[in-house]
Amino acid sequence: MQRIVVLAGGIGGARFLRGLKAAAPDAEITVIGNTGDDIHLFGLKVCPDLDTVMYTLGGGIHEEQGWGRADETFTVKEELAAYGVGPEWFGLGDRDFATHIVRTQMIGAGYPLSAVTEALCTRWQPGVRLLPMTDDRVETHVVIETGDGDRRAVHFQEYWVRLRASVPARAVVPVGAEQSKPAPGVLDAIAGADVILFPPSNPVVSIGTILAVPGIREAVAGAGVPVVGLSPIVGNAPVRGMADKVLAAVGVEATAAAVARHYGQGLLDGWLVDTVDSAAVAEVEEAGIRCRAVPLMMTDVGAAAAMAREALALAAEVQA
Amino acid sequence: MQRIVVLAGGIGGARFLRGLKAAAPDAEITVIGNTGDDIHLFGLKVCPDLDTVMYTLGGGIHEEQGWGRADETFTVKEELAAYGVGPEWFGLGDRDFATHIVRTQMIGAGYPLSAVTEALCTRWQPGVRLLPMTDDRVETHVVIETGDGDRRAVHFQEYWVRLRASVPARAVVPVGAEQSKPAPGVLDAIAGADVILFPPSNPVVSIGTILAVPGIREAVAGAGVPVVGLSPIVGNAPVRGMADKVLAAVGVEATAAAVARHYGQGLLDGWLVDTVDSAAVAEVEEAGIRCRAVPLMMTDVGAAAAMAREALALAAEVQA
Repeated sequence: MQRIVVLAGGIGGARFLRGLKAAAPDAEITVIGNTGDDIHLFGLKVCPDLDTVMYTLGGGIHEEQGWGRADETFTVKEELAAYGVGPEWFGLGDRDFATHIVRTQMIGAGYPLSAVTEALCTRWQPGVRLLPMTDDRVETHVVIETGDGDRRAVHFQEYWVRLRASVPARAVVPVGAEQSKPAPGVLDAIAGADVILFPPSNPVVSIGTILAVPGIREAVAGAGVPVVGLSPIVGNAPVRGMADKVLAAVGVEATAAAVARHYGQGLLDGWLVDTVDSAAVAEVEEAGIRCRAVPLMMTDVGAAAAMAREALALAAEVQA
Repeated sequence: MQRIVVLAGGIGGARFLRGLKAAAPDAEITVIGNTGDDIHLFGLKVCPDLDTVMYTLGGGIHEEQGWGRADETFTVKEELAAYGVGPEWFGLGDRDFATHIVRTQMIGAGYPLSAVTEALCTRWQPGVRLLPMTDDRVETHVVIETGDGDRRAVHFQEYWVRLRASVPARAVVPVGAEQSKPAPGVLDAIAGADVILFPPSNPVVSIGTILAVPGIREAVAGAGVPVVGLSPIVGNAPVRGMADKVLAAVGVEATAAAVARHYGQGLLDGWLVDTVDSAAVAEVEEAGIRCRAVPLMMTDVGAAAAMAREALALAAEVQA
């Protein structure tokens, strides 16, 4: 049985994983989820990326939106607003609230996030082993430029959701990452993997944050198995989200080739770019990373599964 | 301006207060609310009696039910159940959850319950000053007889809501009361009162618990102003709820006269019984408590207002 480890952010990672499960139904898939997006709202611990993976693979996701629950209602949020309690810009529905209430209650009772995530997954049965990258608190902050030329750091969610990445980002800082440890099971999963995949998640604030947990980047680079990624940039623009904005903050061009070079040959063995970026293949291969151009638009589960098959095929190829 | 202090439990207290506001629109009313019913559910602090007063006076109450919010939905609770997280026997609706989330967040931020209650009331504008009896944790437990003849203590809500008072109660213990202090403002309100009222709330687990906070009973007894109560027992049965069960646990008969004697002449100056209990008047007066028989069924706000007027009239009479 093939053991696949996937480093995943939110929507892009979750949709890719759904394709991967279809493409490799017999594989043992371990997902190392980004928790740098986690935020405390209303006294509750919210883990957007873990939940997006869990809901998507468990059949509870709001399909069009890509995050949050299907058939969602917003009574609690309306009532909180009636108390004057915000933020109003973060969309927490009633069904979603229940997840955060259970999580917060368990954390308050002393369970680490990894145990909480496992408990939540007993309901959702995502068909993968979902591990947070760390049980420690890591919070991605973005240094933005304010109107008067000053800079200040805001929580990633404030930058992403409230400001919609509309102000210049000058730096991305995974606060707490240096002191964090990989969650139980993370390093073992990487060491035991047959292949490691980077889905088309955000290379800075999703996969970059996971790799910022001391030990994870080294484990991936030293696993001695193929590491294959899929470009989240298609035709010089992010497939979804605003990855170009945070790429700019770390000085990386928003091109499929630049992202591959950003990961680097020491980490990445193979890289898939979209067919519209086939001109980038040579550039990526010059950087020592095997590269193929294939369709990378996850228009449905079938398209995501085809991408996963291409990634596994490229992994087999670099291994040979 | 007449200053009225009311010791109140949940539904009965709240409905009486609505009548009192109508009967004495210019009075300055301070409510000392029972918090012995408070319970931590799903990691959230729930204050059923305070909320019932707040929702009832603020226009948000579920009118027929007497507790909880009007137009309530139960999405969060259903989702918690889907996670296998209970208890299912406690009816927390989505609107209600928001109150508990705000309260728990504020308590987590270091605010005492009295400050939290004041903040919640800025939304509800109950038209009274609502104070919890204490900012300390007091939790009413009921010693029940289990099937095998053993006894165990359960939280009051478990006894009342889950078991529906269907098992024999052998004792009622306000755990933590001895170590508690009256909340800020409570003793000052009592000392400054022109009249103190006991609404037809449960004499054991509502008013009895408030009086169990060290200093409150002494302040009421020593205020030197009329203290008038209304019987929650009409025709030898509780008007609502299961007050007879907890009265039995403390060895008090479920009659209007027995409840008056339970409070005692040292505390109570006047007592209203229902017209069906007019035979009890003489017995109560023999115990040194002025007594009148008047209609005590709070069928609507008008009836509750008439009861409040009778209570204030009796207070004026005992003072004269």
